[in-house]
Amino acid sequence: MTTDRSPLEPADWDTLRRDAAAALEAAISHLEHRGARPVWRPVPETVKAAFREPAPRGGADPAALLARFTGEIAAYDLGNTHPRFYGWVHGAGTPEAVIPAMLEAALNANLGGREHAAVYVERQVIAWCREIFGFPEGAGGLVVSGTSMATVLAMKAALARRFGAAIRDEGVAALPARPIAYASAEAHSCIAKAFDLLGLGRAAVRRVPVDAAFRMDTAALRALIAEDRAAGRLPFVLVGTAGTVNQGAIDPLDELAGIAAAEGLWYHVDGAFGALAVLSPDLAPRVAGIEGADSLAFDFHKWLHVTYDAGFILMRDESALRAAFSERPDYLAAAERGLAAGNPWFTEYGPELSRGFRALKVWYQLRRFGLDALGAAMAGNCRLACHLAARVDAHPALERLAPVALDIVCFRALPPAGGAQDAADALNEAIVIALQERGLAAPSTTRLGGRLAIRVNLSNHRTTEADLDALVDDTARLAAEFGAG
Amino acid sequence: MTTDRSPLEPADWDTLRRDAAAALEAAISHLEHRGARPVWRPVPETVKAAFREPAPRGGADPAALLARFTGEIAAYDLGNTHPRFYGWVHGAGTPEAVIPAMLEAALNANLGGREHAAVYVERQVIAWCREIFGFPEGAGGLVVSGTSMATVLAMKAALARRFGAAIRDEGVAALPARPIAYASAEAHSCIAKAFDLLGLGRAAVRRVPVDAAFRMDTAALRALIAEDRAAGRLPFVLVGTAGTVNQGAIDPLDELAGIAAAEGLWYHVDGAFGALAVLSPDLAPRVAGIEGADSLAFDFHKWLHVTYDAGFILMRDESALRAAFSERPDYLAAAERGLAAGNPWFTEYGPELSRGFRALKVWYQLRRFGLDALGAAMAGNCRLACHLAARVDAHPALERLAPVALDIVCFRALPPAGGAQDAADALNEAIVIALQERGLAAPSTTRLGGRLAIRVNLSNHRTTEADLDALVDDTARLAAEFGAG
Repeated sequence: MTTDRSPLEPADWDTLRRDAAAALEAAISHLEHRGARPVWRPVPETVKAAFREPAPRGGADPAALLARFTGEIAAYDLGNTHPRFYGWVHGAGTPEAVIPAMLEAALNANLGGREHAAVYVERQVIAWCREIFGFPEGAGGLVVSGTSMATVLAMKAALARRFGAAIRDEGVAALPARPIAYASAEAHSCIAKAFDLLGLGRAAVRRVPVDAAFRMDTAALRALIAEDRAAGRLPFVLVGTAGTVNQGAIDPLDELAGIAAAEGLWYHVDGAFGALAVLSPDLAPRVAGIEGADSLAFDFHKWLHVTYDAGFILMRDESALRAAFSERPDYLAAAERGLAAGNPWFTEYGPELSRGFRALKVWYQLRRFGLDALGAAMAGNCRLACHLAARVDAHPALERLAPVALDIVCFRALPPAGGAQDAADALNEAIVIALQERGLAAPSTTRLGGRLAIRVNLSNHRTTEADLDALVDDTARLAAEFGAG
Repeated sequence: MTTDRSPLEPADWDTLRRDAAAALEAAISHLEHRGARPVWRPVPETVKAAFREPAPRGGADPAALLARFTGEIAAYDLGNTHPRFYGWVHGAGTPEAVIPAMLEAALNANLGGREHAAVYVERQVIAWCREIFGFPEGAGGLVVSGTSMATVLAMKAALARRFGAAIRDEGVAALPARPIAYASAEAHSCIAKAFDLLGLGRAAVRRVPVDAAFRMDTAALRALIAEDRAAGRLPFVLVGTAGTVNQGAIDPLDELAGIAAAEGLWYHVDGAFGALAVLSPDLAPRVAGIEGADSLAFDFHKWLHVTYDAGFILMRDESALRAAFSERPDYLAAAERGLAAGNPWFTEYGPELSRGFRALKVWYQLRRFGLDALGAAMAGNCRLACHLAARVDAHPALERLAPVALDIVCFRALPPAGGAQDAADALNEAIVIALQERGLAAPSTTRLGGRLAIRVNLSNHRTTEADLDALVDDTARLAAEFGAG
């Protein structure tokens, strides 16, 4: 239909094919051989300097850009695709992910809404999530960037449902009293961050004490609720955690559902990584009760290994999201036919008007591997956590600091006999830095009961028993090198 | 280092290479031939039904999934990569985008923070944005999903800067009076949506009247500010728009900067698509004054044709974002060395803890084409808008409804002589639906002064004069077919 070429289209499509094929080989080769390289290396100053060049007025050749990717970016990557990466709760990705990525880029779909097939792919992902978690008809949700944003959406929906849609015009200052949330002392910071963002304030999130297994103490919860009611505050949301970030602990989800119902609270479950344990018959009983949530936030980019970023908010009643977010100005008016049909639009379920087609990579991952294989990989991770815990427990120089509830093991090298707590913390900090800087392994750290812990998160599907045996040996060797008892 | 294979790794890497090569050919071929197909087609019921299958317990073959992509998803796409797509303000993408997409997927980086090379790529994009807009040292920002989220970040930073960080704990109900924003009556809905999300309420956004060219009336603005002060409210934010979504109108940005300074208001500019006009020497004078903003929100996925989604928040003082968002729980504690270094982390600048490597595709697009070529494409779009406007003005059956400020043309087919307004609206609605359903072109609609307008957005780099001549002819022909004078 056109005669003159766009300045941003390829001059020659076969040249693009060759350039793209070279990039594809670099991408696949990076993953094929990643395990043979150090898990992590410091970023050299020369590389940092290379990324300080001024804004480019002219263009560059694809081959030159690919060389920069390989030599500067991929050569000093985060390491989370390496078998010995155990930090935080990073997903490990899958090599197959290059396929939906290039398809998504070619399509360049905007999933804000409208009538096109990509919308039906995201609706299928939504329906699958409803099915996976046993939520009823009328449940729904939205693919989002991750659990942090999912939590914001859920809390906003809870506000609109509890206090009415007028709050959208008048703001939270118009509420008769302060809405209060209850989450365990081990709950993730995203709960308080959501309260901050929504203008409710972090101080409105009560940190309920936990038991010895780091699960919410429900007697303490009941007492706090009663105290807030007596003070004229508004108990509003109860947050259960399916997998605390420090220990993988799981709150008594069923009991919390009952308390929320009895107290008239919105029941939200933070299942960032733990929720998808439902995919494994071995693990599913540990998160029993999750199906009772009013809202459930979780990530695809953690334990499901979809590439960053991709998460989900699942709502028992999807219309609560629309009550909280729907807004259709003139230029986005709904149509019955044509391109502007496809109602309701996804823009009505969240804060974003333009939305990428994240749902494609989620759909591809679930469809390519199937739920059973993905769940089996998670169960394998939990068996590895038990293996590591047993190795730590049997080792005279190491001490475990928390029970293993899912796939996280926290331990430390024992401090020198009679040594101060500070010295023990410094020792374990030094061990973790050395493990990382020598490229041996990449655990992270946290604090448990005030003590610095080496934190090993085993959501990595590439990790084997041999990798963990090496971690135990390396840790003990470094403890000795750094002068521990 | 490992002996047993992960269940999610390829059984055979060469098989993956073949599967990925087939997907790459499908991706490139889709774009190479997209213009030869109808711009849009309704999604058939058979395709919708195909995406209602239950959650898959087992896996599927890549070839079968690619066939579904080609036959069901890409065959019924949105159309925004077609030369005759003019709807909303969609970006058109570039075929080169498949390259950074596959590299991003292979890397699977989490840009929440930490010490790895990808972080320095995002920092370079941030520095380039500072340079492009002539912001001072100390300016900075964050790659985000789009202008809607960028606006939320900016308003949250403005709150923290104006009212202190204690608001993060105590919430906006603790403020002494209601913070008020001022935006033109033609400003985008994302301003009110941000006020809604932050708990300030949509009613706190004053809609300032516009002049005949749809630019904010600054006399009316001053009167509204005085009125709010007299009533004990807190004038807080002034929003200038660089490119209204209905007409592409640009507020008097320089004058607004002066008013904001004199009144002690935070000055935010919504430049979702218009801001990047600074890349063209021809267009840059139209957005003069944009460099005076305290915060500037814009998209890469619109007029820069980076694939969905990617936007940016640029701050005159980057520390305002950190004041509004930084939060480092124990498990994310900062380190001086090792993998947990790289401070400050990007998580401290926004609500998300896990963040994809969107910055790579932005970096690639800017580096591959260079700023001059990208700016020249925008200037070409604006020349096309003038061409279309001239064709509409010269046509007896058509009427233009707004001046052309950048790349948007609003017009309509003239109603039958003496016909009611409703009939004119119905006629133009029918024309747009027919253009879409017959696959001829994809404009969208809006309302201007109560009248339904055919809205043609020319941010599409593939569009030519011949495409627009065909649009004029098709519109006039359909107007005659549907019985107009």
